[in-house]
Amino acid sequence: MIARNGSLQTELRENMRGGKGAVALEHWFKPEAFGAKVRLCTRLTLAPGSSIGSHTHEGEDEIYLVLSGSGLIQEQGEWMPIRAGDAILTGKGGSHGVENNGTEPLVIAAVIILYPPDTP
Amino acid sequence: MIARNGSLQTELRENMRGGKGAVALEHWFKPEAFGAKVRLCTRLTLAPGSSIGSHTHEGEDEIYLVLSGSGLIQEQGEWMPIRAGDAILTGKGGSHGVENNGTEPLVIAAVIILYPPDTP
Repeated sequence: MIARNGSLQTELRENMRGGKGAVALEHWFKPEAFGAKVRLCTRLTLAPGSSIGSHTHEGEDEIYLVLSGSGLIQEQGEWMPIRAGDAILTGKGGSHGVENNGTEPLVIAAVIILYPPDTP
Repeated sequence: MIARNGSLQTELRENMRGGKGAVALEHWFKPEAFGAKVRLCTRLTLAPGSSIGSHTHEGEDEIYLVLSGSGLIQEQGEWMPIRAGDAILTGKGGSHGVENNGTEPLVIAAVIILYPPDTP
């Protein structure tokens, strides 16, 4: 199944997870397309100045792949710079947030995968 | 957990899945870093002329995100062009292969997620 660049619907979320501005979400694939327990497979675009507030991932992992632009990631309260090509893994009750403090759009691929029900 | 661009070890696989040339694999995260059943989270780089031979994904999904370059994807035997920004989902016993028929490196993010054991 191919999801073509440019053919995806864009959903705009204001103040995502308590962040600033708006984040554009383009869903490559919906959860029902997967056999695995994937609840998000989406391109996130944060305009300069926008952010996703810090939040926790319990019982699931989120992979962020930074596709273009640069910004700051918050991991367990600590801020660190990120740029295209970096990847961030958040799960096992860890928290993250992200902010575009640059001048270009910050574009991130986000994949969220649920843990099997028997995970301790 | 951050995997920094440029800090990843590169593994070179010749004739991957029966394909041509070599594919460079850079693993952002190893399976043990996940709580979810992710067995691959890797950047694949195919030089011009290289390919990954057609193969099946049974009991798992693979997401390909085309990061840069262009090429051809084979889905259930049919070839289609792909380019940066496209995403391909293969699972439920489906097959895919990929070839770089262009002049630039074809760079793809690949994530493989296993199905829960009770999946019919």
